[in-house]
Amino acid sequence: MTVYFMSPVPRGMRDFNTEVMLLRESVFSRLKTIFESFGFDPLETPIVELWETFKGKYGDEAENQMLYYFKDKLGGREMALRYDLTVPLARFMAENPNIPLPFCRYHIGRVYRYDRPQKGRYREFWQCDADIVGSAEPEAEALILKLTLEVMKQFKFKKFTINLNDRRLLRGVFETALGIKEPNQVYTLMDKLDKIGEAGLEKELKKLLEEEKVNEIMNLLKMKGRPEKVLSELLEKFPNEDVKEAADYLKKVLKLIPTENIVLNLGMVRGLDYYTGPIFETVVDEPKIGSITGGGRYDQLIAKYGGKDLPAVGTSIGVERLIDAGVELGLFTLNAKTTAQVGIVNLGVREYAWKVAELLRNSGLATRVDLMNRKEKKQSEYYRKLKIPVLVFLGEREAKAKQATVVCGKSREEVKLEDLSAKIKTFLGV
Amino acid sequence: MTVYFMSPVPRGMRDFNTEVMLLRESVFSRLKTIFESFGFDPLETPIVELWETFKGKYGDEAENQMLYYFKDKLGGREMALRYDLTVPLARFMAENPNIPLPFCRYHIGRVYRYDRPQKGRYREFWQCDADIVGSAEPEAEALILKLTLEVMKQFKFKKFTINLNDRRLLRGVFETALGIKEPNQVYTLMDKLDKIGEAGLEKELKKLLEEEKVNEIMNLLKMKGRPEKVLSELLEKFPNEDVKEAADYLKKVLKLIPTENIVLNLGMVRGLDYYTGPIFETVVDEPKIGSITGGGRYDQLIAKYGGKDLPAVGTSIGVERLIDAGVELGLFTLNAKTTAQVGIVNLGVREYAWKVAELLRNSGLATRVDLMNRKEKKQSEYYRKLKIPVLVFLGEREAKAKQATVVCGKSREEVKLEDLSAKIKTFLGV
Repeated sequence: MTVYFMSPVPRGMRDFNTEVMLLRESVFSRLKTIFESFGFDPLETPIVELWETFKGKYGDEAENQMLYYFKDKLGGREMALRYDLTVPLARFMAENPNIPLPFCRYHIGRVYRYDRPQKGRYREFWQCDADIVGSAEPEAEALILKLTLEVMKQFKFKKFTINLNDRRLLRGVFETALGIKEPNQVYTLMDKLDKIGEAGLEKELKKLLEEEKVNEIMNLLKMKGRPEKVLSELLEKFPNEDVKEAADYLKKVLKLIPTENIVLNLGMVRGLDYYTGPIFETVVDEPKIGSITGGGRYDQLIAKYGGKDLPAVGTSIGVERLIDAGVELGLFTLNAKTTAQVGIVNLGVREYAWKVAELLRNSGLATRVDLMNRKEKKQSEYYRKLKIPVLVFLGEREAKAKQATVVCGKSREEVKLEDLSAKIKTFLGV
Repeated sequence: MTVYFMSPVPRGMRDFNTEVMLLRESVFSRLKTIFESFGFDPLETPIVELWETFKGKYGDEAENQMLYYFKDKLGGREMALRYDLTVPLARFMAENPNIPLPFCRYHIGRVYRYDRPQKGRYREFWQCDADIVGSAEPEAEALILKLTLEVMKQFKFKKFTINLNDRRLLRGVFETALGIKEPNQVYTLMDKLDKIGEAGLEKELKKLLEEEKVNEIMNLLKMKGRPEKVLSELLEKFPNEDVKEAADYLKKVLKLIPTENIVLNLGMVRGLDYYTGPIFETVVDEPKIGSITGGGRYDQLIAKYGGKDLPAVGTSIGVERLIDAGVELGLFTLNAKTTAQVGIVNLGVREYAWKVAELLRNSGLATRVDLMNRKEKKQSEYYRKLKIPVLVFLGEREAKAKQATVVCGKSREEVKLEDLSAKIKTFLGV
């Protein structure tokens, strides 16, 4: 007896069968169309990068715990699987100094993180990024936010909020005005507000700061609201350079785009170390699936890889959550089991069947033939299980008369070979 | 002074800029269309697999030297990056016993090998596979070969040879008839004929075998030719069970497809351990780029992952070589620098420019706006550098009259806003 073993996929990683793939590919293709309509172009980079490319870019937690790290077998060099698509873009820009600017690229690809796998969170997952490199102007943020709004519109999400903030606002308010010495600890806690709640946050903050400051922070977090209003209040309360610069810049951004869904939220800080200016994320309010896009300006990242200091801004669309939420909302359905449009039922005339299949393929119809020498009933059962919409029956009679019997739903027609593909296309509505 | 360092990509891996990506995506998309027209459906699997999934599947050299291996940071499990797309398919089939058979899937994706990087050979590269699982009939091989011929036809390769052989033929001839004890050593050498030449092969074989057998092998390798003829000769010379079974099966395969380009070649053995029946590869004769497709039947691989013994056959299209050869043959050209169709030159009317851009995007035109606050000349220079075919100039006059000045090649026209996208589509011929 042979000893068998089952070899599953690694934890947090997934196979995608045809049904799921067809849904995912249609989502990717819709995103591609949106990206390209806004003038973004594709770029691809390796999944394996040198460890030094990632070092010092994401913050300690990501670097030490979440990166897939290994040593090159041959040269012994330290390597890692890419953690996001932003750092590889920065590395690419530094190596390609002659690219015309602004460089607008999108990238749909896999990234890897040792995360705790759960619904919508995986260790291997796809990101969809759009970035603009080379522009330090508010138009760049405006285009990225407009693109985000277009994605939400095209995918028919109605209840959502875009949280907007700016690293300069954070600095001006919490560091300069409130004089907080270890701001990163405070930001990390603020970022957890959704998880731990107001009372939880207050309790945690009190371990770090005097009560007065904690109260002030809690009040600031309540200011969340229409950007123009919150910015005016902040300018009045904290008229320092950072706050002025950020408010002025954000106002220019907001002038170019519809702002109904945009909320200025001082409590939204985004974890990654590399952001320098505006930051934003989109939260779908119903169903409660958390943020599905996130991004911001990272003006100093590219300079870390080379001489040129290039400003950059971008966003990442959490396509895994977009798909999970879309299925939950009923925006997407998993129903296609195959791309095949025609199944040929061969009643003992194999060569004729192959000839007809070739004819249909040449006319652009995805066509299956029997590959298992099966009887009529088994062939049509198989095609019906795959939900192939059109069946073509071919027997001696059809072969002699150079025709075919076409079945689609309740229709059944005998058709001359020369009219076959047109007839099928009518049935399919293509 | 900041200390800069350049961080390149790992050896044998590549960035693909927009120009190259647009070519690659068009090649992938053409391959997808062919695969789907033959009734193959997409499947995706993780790039990281458990080491045990690969163990014992590829032969010692691949397993020990060429697999990207690492230990999971958290659980300490042994992992590897996928080496091909066939083994993950086998693993998937074993885990999904209820999939309707035959399961016809294609897969275009990255694989990883510690190989010596050179032209057309990389450490991270894309494979395009089509496989049929569940059929033990010659129709399956015939469909795979027909698909291969279609790929060669669609990509306009005229001078090419499909080398056909069968593991059962090899066994019947070299093991049963010639009585060779260590056939794998001999096969490995035979596989190197192209590299080491006839004299080289003869010399190497003589180190392993007596002269008489070496002469017999060298004569057998010269029999290479039209399949029907070679099969008859082999049947006459070596009428044992394996040879009879293989010849009978191959004849059935060949009956279903055009055979002009097919050559029976006893010297083509293919390295991978898992093949059990027919094997085949396509060699492009001009330019001399070696094999660009390869595959065969592997009936016992899937059983290694689970209880069910499923027959399977497939082919892999070496898309990297296809692209490299296509560029060399002038079948592909690298010329598109962007997917953008329209560049808007904004002469101080930013809000009007954004409005027009939105209008064009909504009508399906990929449209760029200025993001850097540049002067007219810089804007149009930038668009021309990217070879964007249509420029739309918008100034005070155009904004007031609700119109636009459209420039394409030598044409320059003033157009009302409501006619703008139609006019541009006429220019673009879309």
